[in-house]
Amino acid sequence: MTTLDTMNLNLKDLSFINDIKSMAVVGTSKKRNFFFFRNHAENFKGKLYAVNPAIEEIPGFDKEIIYSSLKDIPGDVDFVYIAVPSSKILKVMDDCVEKGVKLATVFTAEFSDSGTEEGAELERELLKRAKNKVRILGPNGLGLYYPKLGIAWRSRFPAKSGNLCFIAQSGGICNLVIYGADVLGMNFSKVFSFGNGTDVDLVDILYFMINDPETDIILCYLEGIKAERGEILRKVFEFNNRYNKKPIIIVRGGQTKTGSIAAKTHTASISGENHIWKAIFDQYNIIEVNSIEQLLATAYLIKYYGLFELNNLAVLSASGGYGVILTDMIEKAGMNVPSFSHDIQKQIASNFFTNGTSPKNPLDVSAQVFSSKSVYKILDLSLADKKIDGVIVDLPSFYFNSDHTYRITFDPSYEENMIESLTLGHKHHKPLIPIIKRIHCSEDRDRLFKKATEKDVPVFEDPVEFISLLPKISQYTRKKKLIEKS
Amino acid sequence: MTTLDTMNLNLKDLSFINDIKSMAVVGTSKKRNFFFFRNHAENFKGKLYAVNPAIEEIPGFDKEIIYSSLKDIPGDVDFVYIAVPSSKILKVMDDCVEKGVKLATVFTAEFSDSGTEEGAELERELLKRAKNKVRILGPNGLGLYYPKLGIAWRSRFPAKSGNLCFIAQSGGICNLVIYGADVLGMNFSKVFSFGNGTDVDLVDILYFMINDPETDIILCYLEGIKAERGEILRKVFEFNNRYNKKPIIIVRGGQTKTGSIAAKTHTASISGENHIWKAIFDQYNIIEVNSIEQLLATAYLIKYYGLFELNNLAVLSASGGYGVILTDMIEKAGMNVPSFSHDIQKQIASNFFTNGTSPKNPLDVSAQVFSSKSVYKILDLSLADKKIDGVIVDLPSFYFNSDHTYRITFDPSYEENMIESLTLGHKHHKPLIPIIKRIHCSEDRDRLFKKATEKDVPVFEDPVEFISLLPKISQYTRKKKLIEKS
Repeated sequence: MTTLDTMNLNLKDLSFINDIKSMAVVGTSKKRNFFFFRNHAENFKGKLYAVNPAIEEIPGFDKEIIYSSLKDIPGDVDFVYIAVPSSKILKVMDDCVEKGVKLATVFTAEFSDSGTEEGAELERELLKRAKNKVRILGPNGLGLYYPKLGIAWRSRFPAKSGNLCFIAQSGGICNLVIYGADVLGMNFSKVFSFGNGTDVDLVDILYFMINDPETDIILCYLEGIKAERGEILRKVFEFNNRYNKKPIIIVRGGQTKTGSIAAKTHTASISGENHIWKAIFDQYNIIEVNSIEQLLATAYLIKYYGLFELNNLAVLSASGGYGVILTDMIEKAGMNVPSFSHDIQKQIASNFFTNGTSPKNPLDVSAQVFSSKSVYKILDLSLADKKIDGVIVDLPSFYFNSDHTYRITFDPSYEENMIESLTLGHKHHKPLIPIIKRIHCSEDRDRLFKKATEKDVPVFEDPVEFISLLPKISQYTRKKKLIEKS
Repeated sequence: MTTLDTMNLNLKDLSFINDIKSMAVVGTSKKRNFFFFRNHAENFKGKLYAVNPAIEEIPGFDKEIIYSSLKDIPGDVDFVYIAVPSSKILKVMDDCVEKGVKLATVFTAEFSDSGTEEGAELERELLKRAKNKVRILGPNGLGLYYPKLGIAWRSRFPAKSGNLCFIAQSGGICNLVIYGADVLGMNFSKVFSFGNGTDVDLVDILYFMINDPETDIILCYLEGIKAERGEILRKVFEFNNRYNKKPIIIVRGGQTKTGSIAAKTHTASISGENHIWKAIFDQYNIIEVNSIEQLLATAYLIKYYGLFELNNLAVLSASGGYGVILTDMIEKAGMNVPSFSHDIQKQIASNFFTNGTSPKNPLDVSAQVFSSKSVYKILDLSLADKKIDGVIVDLPSFYFNSDHTYRITFDPSYEENMIESLTLGHKHHKPLIPIIKRIHCSEDRDRLFKKATEKDVPVFEDPVEFISLLPKISQYTRKKKLIEKS
């Protein structure tokens, strides 16, 4: 595989991260119940140490893993997690260098993020002391989540690995993304919270992830980058487009005046101008979304349906009005809800047998929604239509309540058949996206969601969560094909 | 109270609906397990009859309430619910007139909604046979939900009354709105599904609801109205602005070409042009939203916080990045996230004691989120600031899991204190809107939601659900004040 000239571009090599075998949590304290130590202890597969001269025991752990200083540890320490007061940080970094530590997360804050000159100076000094031997995630970062090796700064981060990665300055946002993705059945190869990014920054990590065989989809939260890294970022994007072609999905923070000031407080970087970013994203086919929720939803759609181009959608609802509103939303977002092909339309119509329904697109199945077999048939025909690229299905959760007074007719295999209908997108290799509203029956919604996830079907609650993402994914797919041809 | 000249405006009097004492379900069938009969039987407080010459018993009910024909019923019948095949509809309507029925819901479809000339002709004939003596909801409508009298076409519609009303052609959409509002703790005075609107239409019902003392907020789903009713609708809107001043919130269907065609199929009305509607809504201070979800969310905000004007918001998050994105969303929607007043800023800053936080707006409390007392104090101060009109608080549900490994510190009264913090909006008479994401801990989210609802605090999951609604409510409030002054 062709690579960039990392030396000249000042792209830091992070590939050693895949081989971390030992780690120490420095500064773990009794007051916080050894928070970061305990969290890492949940799953870390290598040798784990705790470093703090002030502690003698950690309940539940062998005393022999506790050391006063990094230097006292007999074996190697590849990775350290540092949560000491900023006054002690330089000494700890000196110890890291001496010990041959390869990577240090500096959780400690109040460096350049404090907005004071003393803080900025301390950060520069920290970087100097690392002597380009210790790679730093931080300061003011939560560091690395790498489930394959059991590295996790938080309790209950999934032990399971996946093919997504997420890169952010902010650590809190990583927690939201990791737990949030888990709910949607998505897991990560690696997640990075690099804080102030004084050593390792977005560009380094991005290049690492583009080349990471464990990663297929790259998610970023971006608050801006240092001016001198702009050109390098472009080269990294260009490299991805040319050789690796992983989808990169980015949400930017600091797009408005206050947001930008807040982003600066938060991680001491300056948000770039909107139009520059727009141009860069356009040039390098980056998918830009507007919120963390959209970041996850975009990955969620791609995870289950791969890349797709949606121009013409079919809509199926048991409420004609809801279908009309959905149609408006789809067409306002630049897609179409066209009539079916003549032949398909005839076959679809022949499967409607209840009054008050409409067999045209948007399909209004009305009370026929309770006939799971006819819904299956109608969806199957809709997806078979060459004119149709995908289907959106509206199914409120109360249809599935065990109290069948919600339904007009009772059919014991209703739920099973309906879940089967929802997998028809996979049969036809076209996205079928169900909206299952958490209406009246929250547990039914949870159960259906679980069953759909088991069948690789993404489920939403509100069309506003995903309608605007469909053209973004389509545009990405179209441009990717063009780039491949060129 | 001043009223409109209803006679000249052809506004049908519906006030008799408040006094319905008896009803019959005509055409209830064994095949569908007497669906509409059973549903109405759940709560109807008056005398209920079933009419169908083909049935002799309804399991669980007294045989004496079953009649072959409406005319055989000895007592009065104020209201009939008709679900017979369209071939029998005229005969049933003749019986209604003869019996002195005041209101008939015609559930039966395949009239003008079928798009055929026969259907349209049958609908005209139905209207003629009603002789202006029987008011019709329908055909192709689900009719009336009036919990105070126990009138409900569906099982499990809440028995509790509220101060909202909802008006729609489509019946399926009423089901979504009624169940959906119930989940949010909101109930209805009355809901109308008037189907094709051949007799009673949106304008009639709107006028009824504007004058209805049981109703404070009016919600509509509108697919367009008949051309000759446009002027009358304007007069009704004008009347509302002048005398009754109830907020009217409308979602329109059929705003795009396909949506408009679908709306026509659905209820045989023609959607008006977008720009005309926009102008009307602007002139008469109608709140227009884009989806059923937004319709409910708007009512939800007004229910708990009344009318408000939000220009300047404070934001509190435990994730600085999330706060930055939220700030961007708020400012893109036309509101501000300003700095606090000097004095308040000083007091807020003195309540921050953890590194990695930011005491400026947007507030980044970081790990201090686990100190419920400091969150309370910071929110209290933020809301006390004269510059601040409201606060948005981001609280993922995993903070509240009983497994306290999710938290850095453990505090047994955390949840109670945090819920108390969320009520601070009411103390300061300013909206405090929590986003409690269903992240990782679905049951915790459900429990918190319930507790917040008990304290009259609306809870959302995703800012996209409500951010764009805040300026709409603010604009409504501002214009309402101007209208009142003029």
